Amino acid sequence: MNGMGLVEHLRAIVGDGFVLEGENISSYLEDWRGRYHGSALCAVRPADKEEVAAVVAAVHAAGLTIVPQGGNTGLCGAATPDSQGQSVVLLLDRLNAILEINVLDSCIRVQAGCVLQTVQEKAEEAGFYFPLSLGAEGTCQIGGNIATNAGGTAVLKYGSMRSLVLGLSVVLPDGGVCDWSLPLRKNSAGYDLKQLFIGSEGTLGIITEATLRIFPKPLQVVTVMAAVETVDDALALFVRLTQVLGERIRAFEIMNRTQMDLVLERVPGNRLPFAEACPYYVLVEVTETLPRIDLSAIMLEILEEQIEAGRILDAVVPYSLAQAEDLWRLRHSVSEANKLSGISVAHDTAVPVSQQGEFIRQAEEGIRTLFPELQIPMVGHIGDGNIHVVVIVPYDSVKDEDERTDRIARIHAVVDDVVIRIGGTISAEHGIGQSNKLRLQKSLGETTIGLMRSIKRAIDPDLTMNPGKVIDMR
Amino acid sequence: MNGMGLVEHLRAIVGDGFVLEGENISSYLEDWRGRYHGSALCAVRPADKEEVAAVVAAVHAAGLTIVPQGGNTGLCGAATPDSQGQSVVLLLDRLNAILEINVLDSCIRVQAGCVLQTVQEKAEEAGFYFPLSLGAEGTCQIGGNIATNAGGTAVLKYGSMRSLVLGLSVVLPDGGVCDWSLPLRKNSAGYDLKQLFIGSEGTLGIITEATLRIFPKPLQVVTVMAAVETVDDALALFVRLTQVLGERIRAFEIMNRTQMDLVLERVPGNRLPFAEACPYYVLVEVTETLPRIDLSAIMLEILEEQIEAGRILDAVVPYSLAQAEDLWRLRHSVSEANKLSGISVAHDTAVPVSQQGEFIRQAEEGIRTLFPELQIPMVGHIGDGNIHVVVIVPYDSVKDEDERTDRIARIHAVVDDVVIRIGGTISAEHGIGQSNKLRLQKSLGETTIGLMRSIKRAIDPDLTMNPGKVIDMR
Repeated sequence: MNGMGLVEHLRAIVGDGFVLEGENISSYLEDWRGRYHGSALCAVRPADKEEVAAVVAAVHAAGLTIVPQGGNTGLCGAATPDSQGQSVVLLLDRLNAILEINVLDSCIRVQAGCVLQTVQEKAEEAGFYFPLSLGAEGTCQIGGNIATNAGGTAVLKYGSMRSLVLGLSVVLPDGGVCDWSLPLRKNSAGYDLKQLFIGSEGTLGIITEATLRIFPKPLQVVTVMAAVETVDDALALFVRLTQVLGERIRAFEIMNRTQMDLVLERVPGNRLPFAEACPYYVLVEVTETLPRIDLSAIMLEILEEQIEAGRILDAVVPYSLAQAEDLWRLRHSVSEANKLSGISVAHDTAVPVSQQGEFIRQAEEGIRTLFPELQIPMVGHIGDGNIHVVVIVPYDSVKDEDERTDRIARIHAVVDDVVIRIGGTISAEHGIGQSNKLRLQKSLGETTIGLMRSIKRAIDPDLTMNPGKVIDMR
Repeated sequence: MNGMGLVEHLRAIVGDGFVLEGENISSYLEDWRGRYHGSALCAVRPADKEEVAAVVAAVHAAGLTIVPQGGNTGLCGAATPDSQGQSVVLLLDRLNAILEINVLDSCIRVQAGCVLQTVQEKAEEAGFYFPLSLGAEGTCQIGGNIATNAGGTAVLKYGSMRSLVLGLSVVLPDGGVCDWSLPLRKNSAGYDLKQLFIGSEGTLGIITEATLRIFPKPLQVVTVMAAVETVDDALALFVRLTQVLGERIRAFEIMNRTQMDLVLERVPGNRLPFAEACPYYVLVEVTETLPRIDLSAIMLEILEEQIEAGRILDAVVPYSLAQAEDLWRLRHSVSEANKLSGISVAHDTAVPVSQQGEFIRQAEEGIRTLFPELQIPMVGHIGDGNIHVVVIVPYDSVKDEDERTDRIARIHAVVDDVVIRIGGTISAEHGIGQSNKLRLQKSLGETTIGLMRSIKRAIDPDLTMNPGKVIDMR
């Protein structure tokens, strides 16, 4: 079947108005940051999982390829087609129903195109809490969150997206359908195939539905910020808090002084909550489902004890929700501040929690040796070992595209060498997409990459799904 | 290479004393319950992961097969070789070192042959808590726990074994080595391959090392038992406790009256903690890391409220550790009581938590229709949806092996039909092995089984690993 025959076939499946071509698809052919551009035969908006299966079967039969796209908020170009024009972009936005919220099963069953924030809100309305939270939550879709095994700020307590998935429905590359959507808490019945699709970035199949864990809503949330001298002091505070508060710690974030300075300079409405600047700032959030425990008092006690022991320099315990929001605003202003400062060459490293001090020291040293003039803000989920070391390349400092590409590659290489030496991952929560394929290959080594290729070939022998993403199949 | 040449080769790898043959291997050729018997060329006891890799490479090159065996405590015959005599039994018992306990990373790194109880004890000595707990913990090995995605009594709070694994080292079927052992809390770098090996029962490779999560040690543990009229009343209590106590609930177990009666009749040292027998008994355990919260008082309040509301019949709140242990003894006496009563035809079903009342009703009805004379004790982890419906076939009621096999198959078929109808898994925590292959196939359907076969072929194309287990490859 040629391309035009396929478009007719797709119209027959989803209806005329839901196959887009020409100018109508331009927004689906590039990522939101405008870093990747591609081409496609058409974009299709199926209404439900049956239509998804029929679309996939048709494209597979026609020998073309499929690029699934959720909210198009990814950072690695995984949802942008390549330049060949032989792909069909599969949009999941019409699969946006909340199918069920079940109190006894503590789960919410949703279609893949639901916006993350909608899932959070629906869980909240039912008296529950859905913990995945990240910058793009107003736009990104649950299917994409699952396909990238998204992280965010509550991973410390609740785990990444993988930990929140109880069940999935998927469409295989030939249009076959697997329904593993039951909310089972225990299952040892053969290989747990859904785990492969979580984090596969659309290269193995299409996630059409998900059954997600929801949790008792915390009745108390206490947020504090502490200033510390070193990363190791921050980690010592983390250990102490964990000893006392157990699994109540929902977030434990860090920013270095460079990052805080950029936020204060660039983003209006922020102010430093301390009398003077300090090397590192830690933002801690603890939660509790029992109302009668005085969580603030316990936090105060620990912080006072740590100040007396000289392990933290200062601390702020907000007395109002507004003050707590001010602290979080500092954290949430990071992306904007960095974007306003120049090209952000960001890293999404995770190393073992214990190795973060060493990682940051070596990464900063390596970058400074190469580019002594550049600013290195650092922000991260230090409770998870996920540190974003960022290098700001001022917009006016690079002359052309080639120089930019070269400089970015050299910065990545320095940081990746440290990751490989210390032991860690180059992608903690953003994924691989098209940006990070070579870096992935270098960091994982041939045996693991070879195994990934075997899995890809086993599930998608005709290479129908999201070509050119995650691993090269040549 | 013929078998004898291979044995010489294996001796050269592991040393003469660690290749066992003839009478010395008889205990490795059958499971601990004596239900499965096999034959093997020899059994090998490598000292470390390098020797495991060399042994696997040698067996693979010789065209023979490998049956990995941990503590040999499995319930489904996964560690027993087939009758062909072409297998090498690979024993992991010499890989029994605790490699590292790291406070900052909250992890323990162990070799695969470590006994579960040793891991629990070492974590405890370091001031932590390792939550996997099950009947065989004094004998079973961590590698086997991972290979079967073991469950047990603390899954409600901490998840199955899969949730406890941060990293793995594995040897592939050709002797290749993958080291994914870093304690990373976040990772979105390609397919999460270790997930395939968890729960694969030795059919994809050999787990040689594991990095496991450990948790703050609870400072308080409160155990209570409540008597209820129906399964739905038990679930209502579960919902209420979850609302108030959040994630503090570590165990929420149920037994029916038949099961309790068998325990009281058959196992000395047990007594009913209530004035009279009731339809169902629920055992609840809640934990807390803060010492200053009066957890017992909170539990008492909830139980009183539930008694007043007529939702529970009675409750026992122990005032001493000894009394709490008495309650757990009732639960832990179940296997012994059933074994003393006859052949236990046990089911390892999980259904959604909300569907358990319906599942139990339909399963009991189906069994009673078929065999009205048989006792049906029921025990389970009702907080996880994992119900063990057991049918006791008195020893003197079956004449021969064939009749026994037939009766067991008919009982399984009745229960499996209910599982398929309601939606659930035939194996929540015991695995598939050789016992449950046909039941697995029937319950999962062709598309999913086909995908499992593709994965098996992709990773183990020569079918070297644990032949005849989990899925048939014909």
